[in-house]
Parts: sequence; structure tokens; C-alpha cells
Amino acid sequence: MAGVCGRSVLVTGANRGIGLGFVQHLLALPNPPEVVFATCRDPKGQRAQELQKLASKHRNLVIVPLALCLVADTEGSEHSPPHLASAEVTDPSSIKAAAASVGEHLKGSGLNLLINNAALLKVNTLDNETLKDMSKVYTTNTVAPLLLSQALLPLLKKAAQGSPGSGLSCSKAAIVNISSIGGSISSLIGWDVIELVSYRCSKAALNMLTRCQSLGYREHGILCVALHPGWVKTDMGNAAGHTPPLTVDASVGGMLKVLSSLSEKDTGSFLDWEGNVVPW
Amino acid sequence: MAGVCGRSVLVTGANRGIGLGFVQHLLALPNPPEVVFATCRDPKGQRAQELQKLASKHRNLVIVPLALCLVADTEGSEHSPPHLASAEVTDPSSIKAAAASVGEHLKGSGLNLLINNAALLKVNTLDNETLKDMSKVYTTNTVAPLLLSQALLPLLKKAAQGSPGSGLSCSKAAIVNISSIGGSISSLIGWDVIELVSYRCSKAALNMLTRCQSLGYREHGILCVALHPGWVKTDMGNAAGHTPPLTVDASVGGMLKVLSSLSEKDTGSFLDWEGNVVPW
Ligand SMILES: NC(=O)c1ccc[n+]([C@@H]2O[C@H](COP(=O)([O-])OP(=O)(O)OC[C@H]3O[C@@H](n4cnc5c(N)ncnc54)[C@H](OP(=O)(O)O)[C@@H]3O)[C@@H](O)[C@H]2O)c1
Ligand SMILES: NC(=O)c1ccc[n+]([C@@H]2O[C@H](COP(=O)([O-])OP(=O)(O)OC[C@H]3O[C@@H](n4cnc5c(N)ncnc54)[C@H](OP(=O)(O)O)[C@@H]3O)[C@@H](O)[C@H]2O)c1
Repeated sequence: MAGVCGRSVLVTGANRGIGLGFVQHLLALPNPPEVVFATCRDPKGQRAQELQKLASKHRNLVIVPLALCLVADTEGSEHSPPHLASAEVTDPSSIKAAAASVGEHLKGSGLNLLINNAALLKVNTLDNETLKDMSKVYTTNTVAPLLLSQALLPLLKKAAQGSPGSGLSCSKAAIVNISSIGGSISSLIGWDVIELVSYRCSKAALNMLTRCQSLGYREHGILCVALHPGWVKTDMGNAAGHTPPLTVDASVGGMLKVLSSLSEKDTGSFLDWEGNVVPW
Repeated sequence: MAGVCGRSVLVTGANRGIGLGFVQHLLALPNPPEVVFATCRDPKGQRAQELQKLASKHRNLVIVPLALCLVADTEGSEHSPPHLASAEVTDPSSIKAAAASVGEHLKGSGLNLLINNAALLKVNTLDNETLKDMSKVYTTNTVAPLLLSQALLPLLKKAAQGSPGSGLSCSKAAIVNISSIGGSISSLIGWDVIELVSYRCSKAALNMLTRCQSLGYREHGILCVALHPGWVKTDMGNAAGHTPPLTVDASVGGMLKVLSSLSEKDTGSFLDWEGNVVPW
């Protein structure tokens, strides 16, 4: 799996769950990336302890502060400036600041792989779903991946230009949007576990974004895919009430294997952690 | 086509385009609804002149003020209180107020048909799409239909309970979300005319919402579908730069015929103005 993701990769929401799993797996590759950028809201805080530990052992791990949605939030209110408590705002300056700092670290070379992994799930029913949660979840899960991709586009283009060969691949330049089977419109034939309207809508929209990105960025040599990680033992996976079957290790190991196998023909597709096509 | 939509129907964005066409067609039916609620942002304003004219001739037409997104907007800034200019807010009180006024008019009977038609299109490229437009378009096109359906649910349930028979139909109780083939993820294999990322994402999410509603509201006797009206000669249709092939009359006539034919098996589906299934 050496070289699966080229020389540089960025993972959002990297302090826990699947994001942290990606960072651990990437650092443990026989031929690891020269630099792994791990973003999290509060790099110095309690919730980034695992990342901090990893950074003390791996000089190729760079922790980048990045908040995708500056909204007071029951799970994350300590991260949100109080004067923004009622505003639905993704902070473009934070995204731009993160992209600028990544660019500085790369010293003229490009970014090969962007993994838009961070996401938010709110458990509401169809009847009590709110404007606030609909907006917050969409901003975090759909708009933030769009804006971060825009901000990192010059670095992704640079990576594509600097890579030999004409095809598309994740080791050349790629945007990977971590989606969910919960966003698969045609798979929804009953409420599997919980209703999750805001989350489902945001992931269906993320799938559409992935397809738009695949069309728009193909000419720049950038591959774009949506991945369903499976139902995984993380805080989010557990929120569904039952015990998820997959470990983070199994999910991330599977996804990295899938990513290493992708080529031109796969751009714009929606695949699961085993490489199966997920219907839209 | 008598009785296609039962005794009462509500159409959003009814002052122009396809929404106005729905109102005109419904009023002209041989057996028209007892009441047609036509919502628009500013019932007394310039842009509601056609509706006002119709109301002076048809006593079964009730114009209801309803603003779905209180956001200053190049096309609609006169509707937005200046202090809300930078906030992304759908006014739930306005939706609630509209639902309350509909309830009063119905004097104890239910609402048979809700047509979520109003929508916003913003012409941006993938590269210059913004947080503001993504939020505004999602709030108007996806969140507002959800919130309005919630607010009118008691009236829709009442209509279903008051109708004979056990199946689902638009003359009994239904939510019709006017979507777009632009929201069809699998149909997007090239930029057909323009990129429209915010619009496409909002309509893909609306399709997901439709499916969620069909699951949640089936037990209440409410049919839910998403419709693609075709490419129609309206302000929005013209925004794509070329001349749309369909007249409002042809599109609305087709959709009403499709609606009159729907039954239990169609709930949760995505159909075009001719009744063809549109892929998700
Ligand atoms: N677990 C599953 O079964 C499952 C299934 C399908 C899809 N997925 C997808 O897999 C991805 C990872 O999920 P997970 O299970 O690892 O979730 P998780 O354990 O809940 O972790 C979510 C991560 O996203 C970050 N995040 C959330 N909102 C953020 C914001 N506004 N700004 C910055 N960071 C934010 C969190 O940071 P904080 O610690 O600061 O909150 C955390 O690092 C998500 O895209 C999810 O939708 C998961
Ligand atoms: N035309 C096409 O080719 C086409 C194709 C596919 C799908 N559609 C869909 O068909 C539906 C009708 O489109 P159309 O072509 O008739 O569009 P249109 O001519 O642009 O009319 C849009 C209507 O929505 C209302 N509206 C927009 N934003 C609103 C808000 N925030 N609050 C309240 N009302 C709002 C407008 O009111 P104001 O006058 O106050 O702005 C107007 O009545 C839409 O759902 C559209 O997405 C159209």
C-alpha cells in the first residue's frame, strides 16, 4: 500500500474516530507520506490528546487548527466564541488560514490527497427536525468540504501537475469525501435505525457535490470520490443506539486499500470500505 | 381531472412562474378545489399583481403571505428586514403564521394537497460558490419545504382521516415537492448548461427529504412525491441561458395529470411532468 496517497495528505476531524484512524494508518504505512496534516478544532485541548501523542513521535505529522462550523453546539460549545452562539457561520477565514498554513509547510510542493472526514450527526425525528440543526449539519457536512476543497485547490492542482502520467489516482491528486450510506436516497426503504433527516440530506447533498467536483476538477487531474466507511465503532457510530459491527481499523484499512486502487474510471463514484458501489 | 387535489390545496411561490401556473390551472378545473391557498412573499406588492387579479375573480383563491428565507438577496432585498441582512434565517414564525391562517380558513376541515414549489437558483461556478449562497439556497429549497410540511401536518392528517378509503392519493392528502432533474445525482454526467452547485445540492437533499417524508407520513395516510417539472419558460428556466422548450401550461398540465394518477405505490418516488421515473 506504499504510495497510496502520494507525498502529502490532509485529514479533517482527525482528533478522534475515523479521522484519527486515518492518521494512525497513514503514519504506520511502510512508505508513509512525507507529511500528514491532521486538522482539529482545538489542537491544544483535551480532545486532541491522542493527536498530540502521535505528533510527539512522528515528525511528519502536522496538526492544523480548523473549525468547520462556528456554532454553539451541545457537543462542542467550548469551541465556539459566545458572540457567535446563535449564528450559522462556517468561518471562511479559518478555512483560508488552514489552507495558507498547509501551503507554507509544503514549501512549494502540492497536496496530493484531501480527506474531508469531519462531520456532525444530530438525532432528531422528522417531526422535530429544526432549522438550526438542518443548517448546522449542512454547513459542517456539505458546505465545509466544498469550501475547503476550493481553498486547497491550488495545492491539489500543483500536486497533479507535479506527478508523472496522465491518469487520475489518489497518489497524484484527489478529494475524498467521507459520505454515508445514510445519504443514499435509493437505499432508504425503511428507517434502518433512526430517522436522521438533517444528516441524510447533508450526505445526499455531499454526494451531489462529489459528482460536481469530479466533473469540474477532472481537467485539473484531480480524482474525486465519495466513500461510505461502513457502520463503525466511533462516537457517531454509537449514536445510532446499537453496537456498530466494524472497528475503526477495519474500516480505515479497507478504505485505504480502496483508495490505492482507484483510477480515472472511478472519479465521481460512491464506494464503500470494501470497494462496492453504493447506489445514489 | 376533477378532484385531482381534493377540496383544498396550497401552492408556495404562487405569484409567478410554475406556481402561478398551478393556481391558474387549479382554478380552471371543471370541478375546482373549494379553496386554493396561494402563498407569496408580498401579497400587496407589484410582483403579486397577477395573483391579485385572479383573486378578484375567484372567491376560492386565498392569498397567504409567506417568506421562506428572510435573507437580503439581490433579487428580493425589498422583502428582507435590513437588520437580518447578513443572517441566514428562515422565519419559522412566518411559516407558523401562514399555517395558522390556513387552518382558520379551513374552519375545521383538513388540507388535501401541499405543493412546495417556491425555490431559488443562484448561478455560480464550482470555484466561486459561497457559504452565503449555499446556505440561502438550501434554506429556501430544502429546509423551508420540511418546516412548512411540519407546520401543515395536522391539517394534512385531518384531510387524510376525513377521506374515505385506505390507499394514498393526492385527492386525499399529499405533499408534492417540486424538485428538478438538476438534483438527480446519477443524471449528472456532464455540466448540461451551467454548474449550479448550490441548487443541485439543495434539490438532491430535497429528494432525500421527500423519501424521508414518504416513510414518516405513510402511516398518516399522506402521499409524498418529488416532481421534475421539465425545463420551463419562467424566470428561473431562462436563467440557464438558452430557451426552455416547455411552456408553463404544458408543464403544469402534465404535472396535474401525473398527480391525479398517483396511488400508494408511488409514494416516495421522483417523477417528471410526463410521469416518467427520474433516477435519484
Ligand atoms: N461511524 C460511522 O458508523 C459512520 C458511518 C457512516 C459515515 N460516517 C462518516 O465518517 C466520518 C467520520 O465519522 P466518525 O464516526 O469518526 O465521527 P466522530 O467520531 O463523531 O468524529 C467526528 C469528527 O469530526 C469533527 N467535527 C465535527 N464537527 C466539526 C466542526 N464543526 N469543525 C471541525 N471538526 C468537526 C470532530 O471534532 P471534535 O472532536 O472537535 O467534535 C471529530 O474529529 C463522518 O463524515 C461520518 O459522517 C461514519
Ligand atoms: N423553470 C424550470 O425550468 C424548472 C426546472 C426544474 C425545476 N424547477 C422548479 O420549479 C419550481 C418553480 O420554479 P419557477 O421556474 O416557477 O421559478 P421562478 O419563476 O423563479 O419562481 C420562483 C418562485 O419562488 C418564489 N420564491 C423564491 N424564493 C422565495 C422565498 N425565499 N420565499 C418565498 N418565495 C420564494 C418566488 O417568489 P418572488 O417572486 O417573491 O421571488 C417565485 O414565486 C422551483 O422549485 C424550481 O426549482 C423549475
